[in-house]
Amino acid sequence: MEDGSKQWRFKARKDLTSASDITIKGMLKKLNEAIDSTDPRPTIRLGCGDPSVYPSFRTTPVAEDAIVDAVRSAKFNCYAPTDGILPARRAIAEYLSSNLPYKLSPDDVNLTSGCKQAIEVILSVLAQPNANILLPRPGFPSYEALAASRHLEFRHFDLLPDEGWEIDLDAVEALADDNTVAMVIINPGNPCGNVFSYQHLQKVAETARRLGILVISDEVYERITFGVKPFVPMGTFGSIAPVITLGAISKRWVVPGWRLGWLVITDPIGVLKETKMVDSINSCLNICSDPVTFIQGSIPKIIEDTKEDFFRNIIDILRRSSGMCYEILNDIDCLTCPHKPEGSMFAMVKLNLSSLEDVVDDIDFCLKLVKEESVVILPGITVGLKNWLRITFAIEPSSLEDALGRIQSFCQRHAKKQ
Amino acid sequence: MEDGSKQWRFKARKDLTSASDITIKGMLKKLNEAIDSTDPRPTIRLGCGDPSVYPSFRTTPVAEDAIVDAVRSAKFNCYAPTDGILPARRAIAEYLSSNLPYKLSPDDVNLTSGCKQAIEVILSVLAQPNANILLPRPGFPSYEALAASRHLEFRHFDLLPDEGWEIDLDAVEALADDNTVAMVIINPGNPCGNVFSYQHLQKVAETARRLGILVISDEVYERITFGVKPFVPMGTFGSIAPVITLGAISKRWVVPGWRLGWLVITDPIGVLKETKMVDSINSCLNICSDPVTFIQGSIPKIIEDTKEDFFRNIIDILRRSSGMCYEILNDIDCLTCPHKPEGSMFAMVKLNLSSLEDVVDDIDFCLKLVKEESVVILPGITVGLKNWLRITFAIEPSSLEDALGRIQSFCQRHAKKQ
Repeated sequence: MEDGSKQWRFKARKDLTSASDITIKGMLKKLNEAIDSTDPRPTIRLGCGDPSVYPSFRTTPVAEDAIVDAVRSAKFNCYAPTDGILPARRAIAEYLSSNLPYKLSPDDVNLTSGCKQAIEVILSVLAQPNANILLPRPGFPSYEALAASRHLEFRHFDLLPDEGWEIDLDAVEALADDNTVAMVIINPGNPCGNVFSYQHLQKVAETARRLGILVISDEVYERITFGVKPFVPMGTFGSIAPVITLGAISKRWVVPGWRLGWLVITDPIGVLKETKMVDSINSCLNICSDPVTFIQGSIPKIIEDTKEDFFRNIIDILRRSSGMCYEILNDIDCLTCPHKPEGSMFAMVKLNLSSLEDVVDDIDFCLKLVKEESVVILPGITVGLKNWLRITFAIEPSSLEDALGRIQSFCQRHAKKQ
Repeated sequence: MEDGSKQWRFKARKDLTSASDITIKGMLKKLNEAIDSTDPRPTIRLGCGDPSVYPSFRTTPVAEDAIVDAVRSAKFNCYAPTDGILPARRAIAEYLSSNLPYKLSPDDVNLTSGCKQAIEVILSVLAQPNANILLPRPGFPSYEALAASRHLEFRHFDLLPDEGWEIDLDAVEALADDNTVAMVIINPGNPCGNVFSYQHLQKVAETARRLGILVISDEVYERITFGVKPFVPMGTFGSIAPVITLGAISKRWVVPGWRLGWLVITDPIGVLKETKMVDSINSCLNICSDPVTFIQGSIPKIIEDTKEDFFRNIIDILRRSSGMCYEILNDIDCLTCPHKPEGSMFAMVKLNLSSLEDVVDDIDFCLKLVKEESVVILPGITVGLKNWLRITFAIEPSSLEDALGRIQSFCQRHAKKQ
């Protein structure tokens, strides 16, 4: 059937392929294929923020028990309502309200299949002809991929490494035009490991208000902070500009595979209701798939019964690991980590190519590293910064030490001879 | 803030609201709001195909155990690969191959968040400028809603009530043009409860081949048949025209809330690979949310260990219930069920308005029925046929009898005086 393709009328959608090429998954797949299977050492994966497979990061038994109880009850095998079951929405509303200057209602909370579907929903709602949104660089490439797949234009503003990865708000103002409808912030920061201060977030809100745009605040790493700055939810400033807060149990409870996220209307003035944006969000949720009902059913127990100890332990590990990562990487000639991570599970590290002999760029660095040392890290280009690296420190501490040692020997081996 | 909406640049996406208005969920919500809370009788819901809450339809303990084991193992808290974990894909490939003239590979199987996300993915891939798809009328309105939300044109071909709800294939040929890329069939049929014969499916494949279009076969009710015709998967004819098969554990295992579905390439000739449609599907899956990892992890056990008895018992209940439903409804003056259900969980019933005194149309019928008798059934307009009704018989048999009695008295009360 050599000319078989000619007789069929359907065509591959190439723009989806290019959208998908910019995802972390796509890049990790390429790196995985480069692993040297003859290396007797275990492969160490610092490529994505998912420590759930490591013993130190096993989720709390409270969460497992809650799932088991929900399944055994047989009460949650059914379809769920569009916005999620009420007890789950109520529990999440209370959980998030504890950190806000006002009280959320369960009706402000929409459950989604992980934070990813929350992104999908809000970008679908914003994807109107000619509209554009502003995204951080570096950032989380699912925003670019999902926007591209929906023909929603995006423009990048920079995060400033020398100012603790704060947003270049002048750039935001310069980028925006009459068709700009929203800006995205990620706090605590992926990929930079930064945490925005109260003052900075207030300035973000004021900028958004001046521009007349919505703030989408991706807080999937909420409360995962281990520096001096506390986590402040963007919703705190919801009365300055309307905020949509995205989150999930994925990171704090270390269960990204459970796909339980939320899209929350943190907009005490009601701008989003008045402009019928809330209706559009509900409509979009109404036509797409819901998160698993029994996982929704387990949410009240998971949120109410998890002991502070569990969170404290995880935070302690992340504090030590991020510190070790920061020290060791900054000791390596060809690498600079400009800002000590204070939150999330990542550090951004600059690659000084001039001190390396035979490395062309960040992708080349990562491909050679995985081949020679069986260590997977993400080229910065994937998150928007060429010749940087994104490294997660959220793995078993003993493996992290091993991985950092291997990166060290790799860099020494490839260092320019003086 | 009376003129508050003026200062903001974002706008509600009204086309999403109209897309969402045509969903079953939207209609059921309206009907629910009409329930008379003073009626001491329990509300009986014949509006959607989800019997999971009834004792007779409780899923097998095998499935519950498989979930509990997967959660307790802590091996599946992590993110899953884009197409799903291999053991789950392998189990589904084997399960579906047992019914096909060729063997599927695990690579042909993509896991999705229920059958809904499988629909979402394939329609996203087909949504190119000017393309159109052909949908059955009556049908399952998620297709219309998801196509509309992606600006994909759809055209309707009829299912013929007097020919056992077979497809009007002449109409399919007349509807198609150079921009038609696919047609959708639903077998066993939702909403008609019909099952397509081997011969009819072969004709579907031949028509698709002549038109050069893809067949999307929604088989979410696969093997749920209780008449004389066996279930034949459309993939049987995949070498005539390429077929994409959609399915889920939702219906056969009675766990729609578990959101585990599949999109399977049933295309032994490899047209979809050659035309790079498979790449587009992978790309689309790559950028959207995955089904829950531990549910993927439970799939091999669920599929391999479920006893035939469990399925047989469900089928026996459905056979008796559908028979009772057919007899009783056809005994009611103003209702006609032209075709005895042979599969799925539904019957389509024609409303003879001329024999009713004060009922304007199907929506009016359903609103008055729910108000007066606390019985929820779906107006046919929601599935594309005005002045018909879609009734599910998949509820606890004692409740079904009660509901049919209430429908009977409602119709008698509203019958035209002779």
